[in-house]
Amino acid sequence: MTFYLIGTGLNAESLSWEALKIIRKCKQVYLENYTVDFPFEKKRLERTCNKKIKELQREEVESEEFLDKAKKENIALLVYGDSLSATTHSELILNCMKKKIPHQVIHNASILTAISETGLQLYKLGKTTSMPTWKDNWKPDSFTEIIKQNQSIGAHTLLLIDIALDLEKAKSQLKESLEKNKIEVEKIILCSNLGVKSRIYYDNLENLPLRIPKPYCMIIPGKLHFHEQDFLEHL
Amino acid sequence: MTFYLIGTGLNAESLSWEALKIIRKCKQVYLENYTVDFPFEKKRLERTCNKKIKELQREEVESEEFLDKAKKENIALLVYGDSLSATTHSELILNCMKKKIPHQVIHNASILTAISETGLQLYKLGKTTSMPTWKDNWKPDSFTEIIKQNQSIGAHTLLLIDIALDLEKAKSQLKESLEKNKIEVEKIILCSNLGVKSRIYYDNLENLPLRIPKPYCMIIPGKLHFHEQDFLEHL
Repeated sequence: MTFYLIGTGLNAESLSWEALKIIRKCKQVYLENYTVDFPFEKKRLERTCNKKIKELQREEVESEEFLDKAKKENIALLVYGDSLSATTHSELILNCMKKKIPHQVIHNASILTAISETGLQLYKLGKTTSMPTWKDNWKPDSFTEIIKQNQSIGAHTLLLIDIALDLEKAKSQLKESLEKNKIEVEKIILCSNLGVKSRIYYDNLENLPLRIPKPYCMIIPGKLHFHEQDFLEHL
Repeated sequence: MTFYLIGTGLNAESLSWEALKIIRKCKQVYLENYTVDFPFEKKRLERTCNKKIKELQREEVESEEFLDKAKKENIALLVYGDSLSATTHSELILNCMKKKIPHQVIHNASILTAISETGLQLYKLGKTTSMPTWKDNWKPDSFTEIIKQNQSIGAHTLLLIDIALDLEKAKSQLKESLEKNKIEVEKIILCSNLGVKSRIYYDNLENLPLRIPKPYCMIIPGKLHFHEQDFLEHL
C-alpha cells in the first residue's frame, strides 16, 4: 500500500489525470489547507475527484497518524499547488523513507512557476521569501535581507504573504521595512489569483490596488531584461 | 476563439483535467518538443488526450502562424512541464497581447519545482542556469558565474543541461569549468527522470553514474540546512 502526496495545482480542476486515477483507488483522501488560501471550495475539488475529502488540521498533519495508515491501505494527501513546495511536506516524505512506508509524489503547478505569467524569466528568480503578520511588539523584517541578497546578484524576489495578512497591511509592512532597511524599489509586481483568474499589477507600491481576490503574492523585480520590461508594460 | 498554452507536466498522464477538457474542444493540438527531452512518446500523450497531436519544428513555433489561426478557431500548444518556463513561450503570450489574440495559460508541474524531491527547500534555490554543448573552439562557461552568484548568497543552483549533451560529457565539462573558475564544490545532486521515475544521486562529481535515463539535471548545493542534509542522506 502507498502514501500518495498529490499536488492539486492552482484551481479546482487542475488535478492531473494520473492523480485522478490514483485518488480513485485510495481508501482515504485528505486535504491540507492550513498553509494556503484556497481560491475555491473543497466541494469543487470533491466534484473533480468524485470522492469525499477529509480536511486535516495542522496537528493532524504533524502527528502523521495518517502516514502509518498507508502501511495497510492507499492514502492520499492533497496539497495546494505543487506537492513539495512547503517544508512540512518534505518532512512527510523523509519520514516515509525513515519508516519504510511506500510513497509516491505527484507534482502539479505551483505559484513558484505560475508567476511566469508576469513575463519574468523564471531562471532569474532568486531565493523566495515570505512576510509574516506583524504584531505591536513583533515586527520581523528578515525578508528584506533576502531581497538585498537577491538584488546583489540582480535576481527577482518572490515575496509570499502570510495568509492571515490583508493586502493593505501587507503593503504598509513592506513600505516600512524597505524604508527602514534602505532598499530602493521602483515598481513592484502584485499577482492575484494566479492560475485561476490571474490578474497582474505592475506599479509603485502606493499605486497598487488595496483589495484584490486572494491568494496573492508580490514580486520585487531585480534587474529587468528588456523582454521582461516589454511584457510587464503590455499586461 | 482562443490560443491555449498548455503545460503537459512531467509524464504522459500528468495533463490536468482542465487541460483535457480544453483539448477536447480544440480544432488543432500542437506539441513543441525541440527544447526538451521528452521522457515518453507522443503516442502516449495522444492516448491521454484522445486526440491527434501535430509536432511543430522550431521554425514553425517561431513563425507563429498557428497563433493567427487562433483568431478563428481554438488552438492548443502543448509544452513539456510548465507552460511558461521557457522564454520562447512567454514571447508567444506577449505576441498574443500585441495582436489581441485571446489566450489562456494552463500551468502544470515543472522541473523547477519537481527538484523538491531532492529534499532541497525550493525557497533556497537561486538563479537557474544551463550548460551548452562545447565544441573544440567554443567552450562557454558562463554558468559558473551564476553558480558563484548563488553561492555568494548561500543559494542552490539548478543546472539544466543541453539536451544534446550526454552525461559523461556534461560531467567533464562541469569539472573543467569549476576548476578553471576556482569554484569548490563538494557533493553534487544529479536527478534523472524527475516526476516520471525519479532517481536522485548525491555524490562527488567523479562518483556520480555515467549513464542514467533522460531527462536529467544537476544541482550545485549552496548552504545546506540540516533538514536538507538529512533528506539527501536518506535518498
